[in-house]
Amino acid sequence: MTTRYKMTIAYDGHLFHGFQSQPHQRTVQGTVEAALKKMTKGKNIIVEGSGRTDAGVHALGQVIHFDYPDKEIPPARMICALNSMLPLDIVFKECEIVNSDFHVRYSAKGKWYRYYVSLDRFVDPFKRFYTGHYPYPVDIDKMKMAARDLLGTHDFTSFAASGGQIKNKVRTMYYVNVAKNEQSNEIVFDFICSGFLYNMVRILVATLLEIGRGKRPVDDIPRVIMTKDREQVRETAQASGLFLYHVFYEDVPEKYRLDRE
Amino acid sequence: MTTRYKMTIAYDGHLFHGFQSQPHQRTVQGTVEAALKKMTKGKNIIVEGSGRTDAGVHALGQVIHFDYPDKEIPPARMICALNSMLPLDIVFKECEIVNSDFHVRYSAKGKWYRYYVSLDRFVDPFKRFYTGHYPYPVDIDKMKMAARDLLGTHDFTSFAASGGQIKNKVRTMYYVNVAKNEQSNEIVFDFICSGFLYNMVRILVATLLEIGRGKRPVDDIPRVIMTKDREQVRETAQASGLFLYHVFYEDVPEKYRLDRE
Repeated sequence: MTTRYKMTIAYDGHLFHGFQSQPHQRTVQGTVEAALKKMTKGKNIIVEGSGRTDAGVHALGQVIHFDYPDKEIPPARMICALNSMLPLDIVFKECEIVNSDFHVRYSAKGKWYRYYVSLDRFVDPFKRFYTGHYPYPVDIDKMKMAARDLLGTHDFTSFAASGGQIKNKVRTMYYVNVAKNEQSNEIVFDFICSGFLYNMVRILVATLLEIGRGKRPVDDIPRVIMTKDREQVRETAQASGLFLYHVFYEDVPEKYRLDRE
Repeated sequence: MTTRYKMTIAYDGHLFHGFQSQPHQRTVQGTVEAALKKMTKGKNIIVEGSGRTDAGVHALGQVIHFDYPDKEIPPARMICALNSMLPLDIVFKECEIVNSDFHVRYSAKGKWYRYYVSLDRFVDPFKRFYTGHYPYPVDIDKMKMAARDLLGTHDFTSFAASGGQIKNKVRTMYYVNVAKNEQSNEIVFDFICSGFLYNMVRILVATLLEIGRGKRPVDDIPRVIMTKDREQVRETAQASGLFLYHVFYEDVPEKYRLDRE
């Protein structure tokens, strides 16, 4: 008899080789599994994540689940136990006991990614692990306009890096937002989608930045989508700016469902 | 014939063993001196800092000077040249050519240090290198009240760690501020003083936090000052929360000169 725990975690990705376990690499999954092994005095517990963030990518609201084989532990105590055993670049924020038919990946209804880009000429030392860097003049209105063309249901093949194993590349983009933070001289991109393909956010950000800089026409997104050709976009924004912000397990709320116009 | 450059730099201190050069350690001074040596094809140039920040302490407005032996380089180009050669945890922000009687340490009229304390129960992974951590309830009004007793000219011996070489420990505290940022659940301390003794800010913060937590009476500061006894305060707040914010080379402005009451 095991107990399934759903937990929300945050991590600073800059010292992890991504979420997914890999031999001889420090990963989020491997680090959490090691803590659980210690807690259970040697039992191997598999940790499932809502998605696999890449090396250097951060999470504010990653969700994991695992089946705990020993005596059930109340959620608040599970949070304390894991936080006391984990290194400081991961923190456990929320915990609930769920039915065994809940699955962090298959039960997810949508995901929210956020991307920060610093426009500073030189990299701010305090942002080097936590923003992308694009020291060029960009037209924010052009990017806002172009981003709207992502809304709706499309085959996003052109925005998926090779290496993903998923055949069906049709996804529904519910929400996009491009905002300039004048004080920090940053652009913040938000994307809420039914699901994201491999490197999709980073490729989308790179494309929008090219539009903002005038290297692509503002109406280029529908054309790129239509080609279903990854060669149309060669740039991928840096991992450092990317944050998995939230995973939705209920339908994406109405306020985050934008119309295309 | 050399040219004296005054430069303002920022650095993320968490991967430096402090400002001051030390054998076999990565330091800010050592890193900048190495870049200058490369620029001048092997010349040894000594970099002077306005003060020596400890291991893990950050700077937003540290000031340095050095005498450049080769052909004078315009300030904007000096900034670019150094930023292109330095690792990303240091950035050169401002540069001016000054008279040779200017000295970053002796010409300074005051310094501004800022300290961030997170009150979160668990350490936020994104703050672990950039805040102190104090997961206890604190009374902000008590700390504000107590901080006022630091204003004015005092012998700060009780707040200086041993190890400093300076005999005269009389300093003038011009400005103190204690503020709670509700959104980030942080306390921000600001101190502007004619000069700071070894570990002084971190000892002051630790003392104020003890007052906020009710472990010391709110009127304890005048008593501690009077004793001139370092044993009165045993705590030193973590290096991670401390930022050298600004160095004044003109008189500290009137708006930062608070009356004691």
